[in-house]
This record gives sequence, structure tokens and C-alpha cells, in this order.
Amino acid sequence: MADSATARRSRITPEREAELYEAVLDLLREVGYDALTMDAVAARTRSSKATLYRQWGGKAELVVRAVRHTKPGPVDGIDTGSLRGDLHALVARDDDCTIERNSALMRGVAMAMHNNPDLRREFRDQLIEPEMAEFRRVIQRAVDRGEVRPDCPALDFLLHMMVGGFATRALLDDQPPTRAFLTSYLDAVVLPALGVATP
Amino acid sequence: MADSATARRSRITPEREAELYEAVLDLLREVGYDALTMDAVAARTRSSKATLYRQWGGKAELVVRAVRHTKPGPVDGIDTGSLRGDLHALVARDDDCTIERNSALMRGVAMAMHNNPDLRREFRDQLIEPEMAEFRRVIQRAVDRGEVRPDCPALDFLLHMMVGGFATRALLDDQPPTRAFLTSYLDAVVLPALGVATP
Repeated sequence: MADSATARRSRITPEREAELYEAVLDLLREVGYDALTMDAVAARTRSSKATLYRQWGGKAELVVRAVRHTKPGPVDGIDTGSLRGDLHALVARDDDCTIERNSALMRGVAMAMHNNPDLRREFRDQLIEPEMAEFRRVIQRAVDRGEVRPDCPALDFLLHMMVGGFATRALLDDQPPTRAFLTSYLDAVVLPALGVATP
Repeated sequence: MADSATARRSRITPEREAELYEAVLDLLREVGYDALTMDAVAARTRSSKATLYRQWGGKAELVVRAVRHTKPGPVDGIDTGSLRGDLHALVARDDDCTIERNSALMRGVAMAMHNNPDLRREFRDQLIEPEMAEFRRVIQRAVDRGEVRPDCPALDFLLHMMVGGFATRALLDDQPPTRAFLTSYLDAVVLPALGVATP
């Protein structure tokens, strides 16, 4: 990452950065986004507020960076030769315990973003877009292989399909999306919509 | 409706009920769910708080009933002979202006439900379930006609597909779902997932 936030953070060690993100996530789980203050983060991590603002710019950026820190790395290694294989491998990166923990965090942040335009922008730019970019790379390879037609109408709705599968269960069913659930959803909805036959 | 809430409300006229719901929706738009109080509703509508509690039971039920009041009636009249025709007709019940207004209300309530188990239950039982029941009736007719296979795996994910289409745009794109958008989504995602060919 060569963005400005990384440049600003360059003077702290990766270990200190990870420690700080863990403290932010603990606070987020304890009090939620709206009640989380930079004062509390500063106290919990024995930092100065000035340092936090200088390094991250603000609460929205700090919280989203902390959530992003929990995500698995990029999927450059995934290339199974079929779209179904790649999508299943994407979902299999996390175990159910990690999915559940991340899902609770994402939900808390997603709920708070309704009243926070800053948070909404950070959430979209730092969490949704990187995930979707990976997803789109996997799909593009399927288009290049001829597995998915380049004019398939579902290509315009990748984000909507994925949010439907990943978020609906957490929001309405009060259940985290398990790997088994996500795999079934990919086979039942996403692959058929993309015109890929599933067994 | 022959449920207990209706029985409890039976002594007020439909006009007065509609007037009260309008006031609740105005307050909801002005201050949001969390800051909305029964005191404010009572003052705005010149009711006593005791009456409000007796008639509706609580804030969550009152707010969800008010939002539900804005929804179009049941779709018993819709029966075009094809699943695609029925789904398009479902979406066409509302004009874009109504969709936008309802979408903002639904979003506000959906966001608040994260921290409110009562609201979450009311939201699911009074808003999501009735919509999904109509939707399922339309799909069941398609199964009965032989348009959709009864063992089609996407039948388990109707709610997830619909939430993906209706909510993602509002949550992440800051745009209400228009009729044109919803129609495209039905054709590109929902119908192909159900194994129904679209032009």
C-alpha cells in the first residue's frame, strides 16, 4: 500500500500498529462506533490524541483501518482454473469463527455509517472496494477463459449479490454467515446468475 | 388483519390512525429512530402517552406499524401468467418517488434495529415477512406452473437475493433503488438464479 495513510503511519512499527488496531477493535466491540472516542483509544493505547489524529486523520479512518486489519490478505494465490473453484476458495480463506467475529464488527460499523458520511466513505473505499476488486479479478479471469459471457447482465450486480449473501443473514437472521452457507449461496445464486452451471 | 394490535386499536378511526402514523413518520425523518420518543409523538399528535402505549404496546411496534402503513397493499390482483411478468408487476406498484421515500424510512429503521432487539423482531415480523410472503406466493405459482423447478436451490435464498437488490444500493451507493434498477436486477440475477430465461 502506497497511500497517504500508510505514509503518515510510517513512523510506527507494524507491531505497534497491530496492537493499536486490536485496542480499537476491543473498544468497538465493547461500546460500539458511536460511543467510541479518540480519548478512549488514546487512554487504552497510551498514545496521545494528537498522534492518533496525525497518523489516521480521524475516528472513521482509524476504525475502518482496524477492521480492515482483520481481513485475510489478497487472494493472488487463488487460481483453481474454474470460477466455482476460485469462489469456493475465496470463501474458504476464513474459518467460521473468524467469519463470525468479522461479521459482528462489519455489522456494527455498517450500522453506524447511516449517520456518518465520513464513515460511509471509508467503509466503501477501504473495506468494500478492496474485497470487490479481488472478486472482480476472479470473475474477469472467468470471462477471459470463456466461462462467463462478457455481456452477462449479472456482471453489473456482483456487489448486490455478494452483499445479499453476506449481510442479509447477519442483519435479519441474527446469524453469522458460515462457510457452508456462503458456499451454498454461491452455488445457488451467484454462479447460476453468471450463467455457470453448478452440480 | 385480526391480530392483537388491531384489536387494541379498534377504538380509533382509520383517519385518526393514518394521521398518527404520518406524525410518527415525520418525526422519524426529523430525528431518527433512537431520538424519537413517545413523549414527542404524544405532543405532536395531541394524544396521551398512556393511549399510545395501550394502542401500540411500545415505540418499536408503533414505528414499524407507521412504516408498514406506507407500503402498497397486498398483490392479490397480480397474476400475469409468467414469473417475470408477476415480479415486474410487483416492482411497478410504486413510483420512484414512493420507492425513494420508503427506502429512506426503511433504511433509518433498519440501521436502528442493530441495537434494538424489539425493533429487529417487529421489523422482521411486520415488514420483511409480509413482503416475503407475497413474494413467495408469486414464486409458488411459478413452481405450480412448472416454470421453476421445485428443488431449485435458489428457492432457499429468496430473501437474500431481494435484500441484495433492494438494500445494497441504498446502503452503499447512497441511491434509492429505482424501478428501472429493480427490474434490471430481477432480470439479471433473480430470474436466472431461479432457472427462468430472460430476454
